[in-house]
Amino acid sequence: MAHLDNLTKPKGSLGKLETYAVRMAKIQGTVPPKIEKKGVYIFAGDHGITQEGVSLYPPEVTYQMVKNFLNGGAGINALARSMLWDVTAVDAGVAQEFSPEETASNTNRLIRAKVGLGNKNFYTQDAMTEEELQSSLDWGKKIARDAQSRLYDLVALGDMGIGNTSTAAALLIAEGFPPERIIDRGTGIDAATLDHKRRVITEGVRRRGPFRSDLEILQKLGSFDIAMMTGFILGLQGTGIALVLDGFPVSAAAYMAFRMNPSVTEWLFAGHRSHVIGHQPVLEALGLDPIVDLEMRLGEGTGAVIGGYIVELAVRTAREMSSFSNAGVSKSQADETAF
Amino acid sequence: MAHLDNLTKPKGSLGKLETYAVRMAKIQGTVPPKIEKKGVYIFAGDHGITQEGVSLYPPEVTYQMVKNFLNGGAGINALARSMLWDVTAVDAGVAQEFSPEETASNTNRLIRAKVGLGNKNFYTQDAMTEEELQSSLDWGKKIARDAQSRLYDLVALGDMGIGNTSTAAALLIAEGFPPERIIDRGTGIDAATLDHKRRVITEGVRRRGPFRSDLEILQKLGSFDIAMMTGFILGLQGTGIALVLDGFPVSAAAYMAFRMNPSVTEWLFAGHRSHVIGHQPVLEALGLDPIVDLEMRLGEGTGAVIGGYIVELAVRTAREMSSFSNAGVSKSQADETAF
Repeated sequence: MAHLDNLTKPKGSLGKLETYAVRMAKIQGTVPPKIEKKGVYIFAGDHGITQEGVSLYPPEVTYQMVKNFLNGGAGINALARSMLWDVTAVDAGVAQEFSPEETASNTNRLIRAKVGLGNKNFYTQDAMTEEELQSSLDWGKKIARDAQSRLYDLVALGDMGIGNTSTAAALLIAEGFPPERIIDRGTGIDAATLDHKRRVITEGVRRRGPFRSDLEILQKLGSFDIAMMTGFILGLQGTGIALVLDGFPVSAAAYMAFRMNPSVTEWLFAGHRSHVIGHQPVLEALGLDPIVDLEMRLGEGTGAVIGGYIVELAVRTAREMSSFSNAGVSKSQADETAF
Repeated sequence: MAHLDNLTKPKGSLGKLETYAVRMAKIQGTVPPKIEKKGVYIFAGDHGITQEGVSLYPPEVTYQMVKNFLNGGAGINALARSMLWDVTAVDAGVAQEFSPEETASNTNRLIRAKVGLGNKNFYTQDAMTEEELQSSLDWGKKIARDAQSRLYDLVALGDMGIGNTSTAAALLIAEGFPPERIIDRGTGIDAATLDHKRRVITEGVRRRGPFRSDLEILQKLGSFDIAMMTGFILGLQGTGIALVLDGFPVSAAAYMAFRMNPSVTEWLFAGHRSHVIGHQPVLEALGLDPIVDLEMRLGEGTGAVIGGYIVELAVRTAREMSSFSNAGVSKSQADETAF
C-alpha cells in the first residue's frame, strides 16, 4: 500500500484496481507485481447427462467448438487476440478423436489429455470410475506445471462442453446448494425443458447419493473436464500464478477445489458475474467479488479474460505511474499530515 | 442483430457486448462496426471556487498534473499505453502558462485552448462572462473536429481540475438535482470541510440565481473546462464518433449538453460508475448504464478508457468471430426453428 499511496493520485482513488494490484503482489510475493505472460486454458469434455435431453445443442458441438478454438474463430479467440492471451484448448474428454494435424499447426494449442470419450450419464450410473477421477485430477496438476513452464503470471480458466451446466449443478446440489438457486436454462432452453432438466439433475443426485466425501461427489456426478479443472486449480498452489475464473462450470470446479483445499481462494479472481443464475451463490460461497458484470453466459473463458485484463491494467498502473516527488506534483493537506 | 445471431455462440450469450456492438453499428451506420483509432481528451482548467477552501489539494496541482500527462506519468497514461489510446490534454483554462517546449515533444499532445487563467469564484461573482462561455463552447466544437481529423472511431472524455467537483455540483444543483445526492468529498476531505463545501456550493448557487436558461447556468456557475467539454460533446453530432464518459465532472458536462440537445445520448457511453456519490443520479438522468464499476474516483478519463476498451472488445468480437456455417458448428434446436 505504501507504494500505491505515493503515486500521483488521491489515496485510494483507483478503487478496486488498487485492491487487485495488492492481491497480485501477495500472490507473487513481490512489490510491485508484474504480469508479462498470460494464457487462457479451455477445458473441453462431453457429458453423459446429455443423453437425458438437458441441452438444445447436439453433443458434437463440443468437438466442433474445440476445432473452432484451434482455428481462431470463437469468441474467446477474438478476445484473446485483442488482449494478448495465449489460447490453449485441453481435450479432457471430448467424445470424438482429434486428428494429429489438428494440433500441429496454429498459434492456438491443443493439449491432449483425453481420459475417455465423454463421461457416463449420472442419471443412470456413476459418471466416472475412481481411476478416471484420479487420472483427471492428475492431468489437471500436470497442466498446472505446463502453465509454470510457459512462465505465465496469470491464467484464465474456461470451459466448453455441451451439458456441463447440468454436471456443475449436480455437483453443487450434492454439496448442499439449493437447486432453485443453481439450475438454469443453460444455452437457452424453454420452460418445459427446464422443468425436465431440474427433475433429471435432482433425481440423478438422489440416485448417486449419499456421498461420504467431496471426492466421491466429483467421481459420481462430475466429468473429466470439471475434475481436471479442479486438479488444475489445486496444482497452482505455491507457483505464484494467479487464476481468473470464468462462469458457472468453472466456478463449480473452483468450489470442489475449495472443498479439498480452502486456501485456493488466495490465488483466485472472479473474472465476471455470468448471467447464469447459479453463478452468484457459488462466488459468494468462495468469498469472491466479480470484476465485471456484462451479463455474459458464453463460457470458453470469455468473462475470465476480460476480468483478468482489468487485473493486468491494475498491475501496469501500479508499476508505471510516477510518484508525487518524481513528477513534481504537490500532495494534498491530508496526505502531508499523514506523513 | 442478424449478423450477431449467426456467430458461433448461443443467441445473446455475449450479453452487453452484443448491446455495445449494436449501439456502435447504429452510431457509425455500418455493420459490422469498427474501432481502429481511439483517443482520450482530458480537459483541464482551474476553478475560482477553490478560493473558498473546498479542496485539500492546492490549485497548482492542475498545472502539475497536465505536465504529468504530457510526460506520461499519470494513471491515464499507464492505462492508455496498455489499451492503445492516444492521449490529448486540453488546456481549457489552467491558471499557469505552459512553455512552448512542453507541447512540442512527446506522444502525448497538448491542445492550447486557454480561455483564461482559471474562471472566477461563483461564490462571489459570475464564473464566466458571456464571451468566455461562448469561446469555451466554440473551442469544444473545434476540438470535436480535431477528433474527426485524427480519424477516431471512439473518444474518451476525461477531466483534470482542482475544484471541478464543486463546479459540477453547482451546475447540477442549479439544474434541480437535490444537493444531498450530489455533493461529495471529492479527493478526500473530512466531515467539517464537507459541511463547508456543501454550504459554499448551495449558497453560491442561490446567489447566482435565478437562472433563465441552461446557458446562463453554465456561464454563471460553470468553468472553461466543463463548458468546453459540453461544446465537444455537442460537436460530435453527425460525425459517427462515439464518446465514452468518465466520472462526475465529465458527466455534468454531458448533462449540460443533454439539456441543450437531448439527442447527445445517442453517441454517449458511460464508461464506469465512479465512487463519487453524485455520479449515479446524473447517469440515471441521462439514461446511461455504466459499463464497469471499479469504485474508481481518479478522473483523468481513467474510467472512460477502461469502459471504452470493453466497447472495443465488443466490436472486435462481432467482427472476428466465425459464423456457424463457416466454422462447421451445429446450431441449437432453438436456433433452427427460428430460421
